[in-house]
Amino acid sequence: MKVNGQNFSTLWIENEKVKIIDQTKLPFEFIIKELKTLKDFCRAIKNMEVRGAPLIGIAAAFGFALAIKKDASNKNVEFCYEKLLQTRPTAINLKWALNSILKKIKAKTISERASLSFKLAKQMRENDIVNCFKIGLHGFKIIEKLYKKRKKAINILTHCNAGWLATIDWGTALAPIFLANRIGVPVHVWVDETRPRNQGALLTAWELKNEKIPYTIIVDNAGGYLMQKKKVDICIVGSDRTISNGDVCNKIGTYLKALSAYDNNIPFYAALPFSTIDFKTKKSENIPIEIRNGNELSHLLFNNNNKYSKGEIYFKNSKKYNPAFDVTPSKYITRLITENGVIKPSKSDILKHLKK
Amino acid sequence: MKVNGQNFSTLWIENEKVKIIDQTKLPFEFIIKELKTLKDFCRAIKNMEVRGAPLIGIAAAFGFALAIKKDASNKNVEFCYEKLLQTRPTAINLKWALNSILKKIKAKTISERASLSFKLAKQMRENDIVNCFKIGLHGFKIIEKLYKKRKKAINILTHCNAGWLATIDWGTALAPIFLANRIGVPVHVWVDETRPRNQGALLTAWELKNEKIPYTIIVDNAGGYLMQKKKVDICIVGSDRTISNGDVCNKIGTYLKALSAYDNNIPFYAALPFSTIDFKTKKSENIPIEIRNGNELSHLLFNNNNKYSKGEIYFKNSKKYNPAFDVTPSKYITRLITENGVIKPSKSDILKHLKK
Repeated sequence: MKVNGQNFSTLWIENEKVKIIDQTKLPFEFIIKELKTLKDFCRAIKNMEVRGAPLIGIAAAFGFALAIKKDASNKNVEFCYEKLLQTRPTAINLKWALNSILKKIKAKTISERASLSFKLAKQMRENDIVNCFKIGLHGFKIIEKLYKKRKKAINILTHCNAGWLATIDWGTALAPIFLANRIGVPVHVWVDETRPRNQGALLTAWELKNEKIPYTIIVDNAGGYLMQKKKVDICIVGSDRTISNGDVCNKIGTYLKALSAYDNNIPFYAALPFSTIDFKTKKSENIPIEIRNGNELSHLLFNNNNKYSKGEIYFKNSKKYNPAFDVTPSKYITRLITENGVIKPSKSDILKHLKK
Repeated sequence: MKVNGQNFSTLWIENEKVKIIDQTKLPFEFIIKELKTLKDFCRAIKNMEVRGAPLIGIAAAFGFALAIKKDASNKNVEFCYEKLLQTRPTAINLKWALNSILKKIKAKTISERASLSFKLAKQMRENDIVNCFKIGLHGFKIIEKLYKKRKKAINILTHCNAGWLATIDWGTALAPIFLANRIGVPVHVWVDETRPRNQGALLTAWELKNEKIPYTIIVDNAGGYLMQKKKVDICIVGSDRTISNGDVCNKIGTYLKALSAYDNNIPFYAALPFSTIDFKTKKSENIPIEIRNGNELSHLLFNNNNKYSKGEIYFKNSKKYNPAFDVTPSKYITRLITENGVIKPSKSDILKHLKK
């Protein structure tokens, strides 16, 4: 997608080197980084230089491929797999990507493993672009249908960032919005700020601004009010892990918006590729929820004469707790928008649309 | 209540002078200000140097009394009344306080009006302290009952600041908590940060710290997750206006927490004096919701080597919308905690407990 009119993706290969946009500095600074070592990749995922479930998966795949280049022994393969897996516990795409590669290289000789891993990571990257585009098309039809009925710009509420920055390109929740805008269906996006890291205000708003799509940032508290006042036509969010009964784990606060949408008869969609579906975990209580450092609440980047530095917004030594995700029960989800179509958040419909 | 071990109230009279704590600087700086002119009072209310529905009402009462001191003609009375009323549209206590005074002084001669107004304002101030203490006692019994059943510290979630800083002393939602702590019933408070102005993280957490009550600040997004995980036993919030059908208007985001409490079978209480009840407005759609400046989202106070200055946390010229309140329908409210007892959020029970 566009950054100041120029096309970018979040992670790409340049002369066999893996390049990323450092998302911790966005939108204030646009920094391109090369990731070389296992340590680089682990840090980049943990510190959220790359973030978003689909992107994390692909970044881990490349990290794995580069990390076993010099030593693809079972021992090192296992070591690198574990290190990458431990970076973030909730997004299932990380596990999905690493398992997919592991399965395919295990039978191979040690000398074949690294190059095959790299090839598979590249394929995943390409597939992610295609899948997100398909999610965009399926979701676009939902927006278009609403527009034909209401005949005015469709107001879409989204939470956190499930835009192109959360994937390789196009995004999940934002892909239908980007397409609507390009095709000419008018939309306006209510952007949840998404505390504590403000990915909505910082990343989603920035993506929309770059694509010249009308948006308005609101605090996370405001969505319920807007829904009561009929200022929201549809909600679309992403997912970090969706289990096969249709329960959607996503950025903390998603559940509250889903409750409010339900209370106000507003359709609530989660957009995700099938790589985000966890077929093993049976109950959402068993999804590991990442608890991040409490200083993410109190320490923010702020602009000081166009220099960005970190400052504290609470009083010293205040007590904080920072869970990063919550789970929205499937009964509050209207439909899942996937690359294989718009499906019910139920086991039977998910299995029906699973392409093996 | 205590500030560094010393007792304070939010507004008091010293040699016939009206003194306040400037809440825009809390908890970073503790500044006491004198309010003298109508302009002083209007600014203090509008800029939230004094805030919280009960305190706004009493501040307006004193502002009115001082403003008509030199000229208590009908014309000036009307002018001062209107000016004060326009400072903030949602909190009904403002109107209640001014109307109460107006009603009583209208029949008086011009020369009697100012001193009577001042006397009435002082009475309101005293009554507020008593009423909040009664709210505290009624609410304390609810917490005590829960404690007797669970036999471990009661986890209470609150939104925004409905502590002593929102009243003259004791607070509304926090009064039961202060009493529980002093009486020896163990509590822990989940403090919603309360974007955009962070009154939870800044004021509520500071009040609790000063009273040595265990608390933890969370982002507004996190409450739903905590309720799903059974880490919240009870929610208590304040109110800026409650209409006679029991719908509770309060700080933006309250509605989302009430939905979540309802979904997880957690009792949800609103604590308020009867002066917060609006008997005229029949439908909550008709409550005027204050829309504040969008820069309240993007411009925050930062600690820079123990100097606090304002910094911008979004990119320049981002689009923002800032509604300050929402309405929680009465069906999501377990009970109202008032000075006249714990009552159902229904017209009949409210009228039954109204003391004329």
